[in-house]
Amino acid sequence: MSKPTIYLIPVTLGDTPIDQVLPPYNTEVISDLSYFIVENVRSARRFLKKCNPEIDINSLTFFELNKHTQKNEISTFLSPLKSGQNVGVISEAGCPAVADPGADVVALAQNEGYKVVPLVGPSSILMALMASGFNGQSFAFNGYLPIDSAERVKKLKQLENKVYNEYQTQIFIETPYRNDSLAEDILKHCKEQTKLCIAMNISCKNESIVTKRIKAWKQNLPKMHKQPCVFLIYK
Amino acid sequence: MSKPTIYLIPVTLGDTPIDQVLPPYNTEVISDLSYFIVENVRSARRFLKKCNPEIDINSLTFFELNKHTQKNEISTFLSPLKSGQNVGVISEAGCPAVADPGADVVALAQNEGYKVVPLVGPSSILMALMASGFNGQSFAFNGYLPIDSAERVKKLKQLENKVYNEYQTQIFIETPYRNDSLAEDILKHCKEQTKLCIAMNISCKNESIVTKRIKAWKQNLPKMHKQPCVFLIYK
Repeated sequence: MSKPTIYLIPVTLGDTPIDQVLPPYNTEVISDLSYFIVENVRSARRFLKKCNPEIDINSLTFFELNKHTQKNEISTFLSPLKSGQNVGVISEAGCPAVADPGADVVALAQNEGYKVVPLVGPSSILMALMASGFNGQSFAFNGYLPIDSAERVKKLKQLENKVYNEYQTQIFIETPYRNDSLAEDILKHCKEQTKLCIAMNISCKNESIVTKRIKAWKQNLPKMHKQPCVFLIYK
Repeated sequence: MSKPTIYLIPVTLGDTPIDQVLPPYNTEVISDLSYFIVENVRSARRFLKKCNPEIDINSLTFFELNKHTQKNEISTFLSPLKSGQNVGVISEAGCPAVADPGADVVALAQNEGYKVVPLVGPSSILMALMASGFNGQSFAFNGYLPIDSAERVKKLKQLENKVYNEYQTQIFIETPYRNDSLAEDILKHCKEQTKLCIAMNISCKNESIVTKRIKAWKQNLPKMHKQPCVFLIYK
């Protein structure tokens, strides 16, 4: 009998067809699972139904893992593994355990010696990096920048220094309704010759991944309000 | 008419079935292309044939982009785009333009204003990160560490400092025949309580992605010689 396994199951970024961004194997794996750790039960059900319209949703058990979950609750989510059942982890968008709470449950599974198997799917961070033309031999993802304006400018300058001193591509994101204001801060506080890649709506309709020097962006910044974006800077 | 587009086409990591790691959409895109920029023509042909056994390989044009390619040659690879033809970029393993020469041609395409579209596929870096249980809100990929022993130890200590000071997961790789010696250096020079994830043969048979504290690895390090590995450290 094979070792109990926790599968990390990516989902589409937005309303993209399954076949465009997920391998057929993922649906095979999903169809064999009865237990899922998910960020949001409603959207996880919808995703599972989209992958496999025949799936019997009511026979499945869901554990909800998000910012409201207590730390001590998480370990109970692994109880199916203890009795030899496999478990799937599903996030809200993209790859679980990258920029979401999934990493906590994976850390626990690793700690307890379970097998952890990542499946292939869309990652806005990685796809933005691929298409940016920036250094892919050295890059850092920095999550969300600080909200406080002075802190944010300081962080932007630190990241720009890493670009020039360490030749490292710097990647970051923002809550979609604050994209425009982040972009303005980048244009205002980074060097004119620094390159900025704005990656919008990755793998969705209206996808646009464009790299220009800051000086060129100053002439025409796209509207990013409420569009999911990844920002990357390099020299 | 749609804008000439450069598609970034991931391939399998090792001898994995296409359906396990690539979305069906990728094969649709491939089947419509006549021009490919590839790291190695032989393996690219083999991959295309595997995706679409009906493909007429002899009707396709390949440009080879690898460490032997002259910088000034690269711009000629984009000539099909100039005449309105789409072009695909294929690397040796995983996602093009991440840890391979593909980024140069993407940078040029961005510079000339062509549309760049990344497709979904396996990335050993991202999949290792997902399964490590390490911080996925902040992480850095550092490529290959220095070969020189003193330089390498210095770099390892720098990366370990970033783990503790910046809470940033540090990811790096090694030429597969030097994996064992890199692992020994990590065990010898990093703190006992630091966590090391060794991700071997990702998405292939014998896949193993295991996280332990350095202290625990000291008791039984796996044989990694000539197995493709990704190394990650965190606290």
